[in-house]
Amino acid sequence: MTASIRILGVDPGLRRTGWGLITVTGNRMSFVASGTVTSDNRRDLAERLRQLHDGLQAVLVDYAPDEAAVEHTFVNKDAGATLKLGQARGVALLVPALNAVPVAEYAPNLVKKTVVGTGHAEKDQIRMMIKVLMPKATFNSDDAADALAIAVCHAQHRRSAEVAARIAEKLAP
Amino acid sequence: MTASIRILGVDPGLRRTGWGLITVTGNRMSFVASGTVTSDNRRDLAERLRQLHDGLQAVLVDYAPDEAAVEHTFVNKDAGATLKLGQARGVALLVPALNAVPVAEYAPNLVKKTVVGTGHAEKDQIRMMIKVLMPKATFNSDDAADALAIAVCHAQHRRSAEVAARIAEKLAP
Repeated sequence: MTASIRILGVDPGLRRTGWGLITVTGNRMSFVASGTVTSDNRRDLAERLRQLHDGLQAVLVDYAPDEAAVEHTFVNKDAGATLKLGQARGVALLVPALNAVPVAEYAPNLVKKTVVGTGHAEKDQIRMMIKVLMPKATFNSDDAADALAIAVCHAQHRRSAEVAARIAEKLAP
Repeated sequence: MTASIRILGVDPGLRRTGWGLITVTGNRMSFVASGTVTSDNRRDLAERLRQLHDGLQAVLVDYAPDEAAVEHTFVNKDAGATLKLGQARGVALLVPALNAVPVAEYAPNLVKKTVVGTGHAEKDQIRMMIKVLMPKATFNSDDAADALAIAVCHAQHRRSAEVAARIAEKLAP
């Protein structure tokens, strides 16, 4: 019997942070839940970050993931937008860490390449591919779909890392 | 008798986050404590953000500030550095918010202008001015000195806001 693990994917953003939870058993993946945490842009920044924290913390408590993966976005219009994203990303990385859940990071291109097969996939292709991989998946935003893609990316990369580790163990003197 | 309030200033950074605590009674300011929270750059990002969180959370618990102020830095070499700073800043804003402490933000130029009188002050001028304003102040890093300057900036701006509010009240029909 293969143990199954729960992976939380997070696509961080100050206005909307998408999250997606999948279960991986051997090489079988299945959808658990997804959603979007929003912050109220009429509130000040610290309060908005608290809203993101509280929303993600509720997901951590409700679904108790074993591992988390967060998109590592760089590209942005200007320094102001990058700083905003960084702040939301800081919270997205912090919340799993506060719950003792290890966090991996993946560049958007790697997520697209892993899930769709090309680093330049469109939003629609990602949504379709998620549906192909996990027909029961539902998502209420592009951010939630992206978060599921991030979870899938982590599932595949951690598996490769596991296989590599097992081979290395056998080869060890 | 004038009530006194405790202000926490924070100068966020991923490697080193400075903090400084002052007490304000009427227009008298006094130094309480300052320090530097560091993160271990051999650990992964989520873990480093947790270290910053834990350090700042300990300050919040030990000193129970009434209000907090965080430097709003923009200027940075590149998008990567801006993102890093944003992540640390997200944690610096989040921790007071999680403790129900209101957080104000001040641009570095306003902090320098308020404390030293010019927006282009050097580190040395800030350290000296902090010593003039609060002779008992000690700090173990430039970041801690900057954090005290941010607290002083907030003390002066919140006072102006208070005076303006009192005048507005008297003028109200």
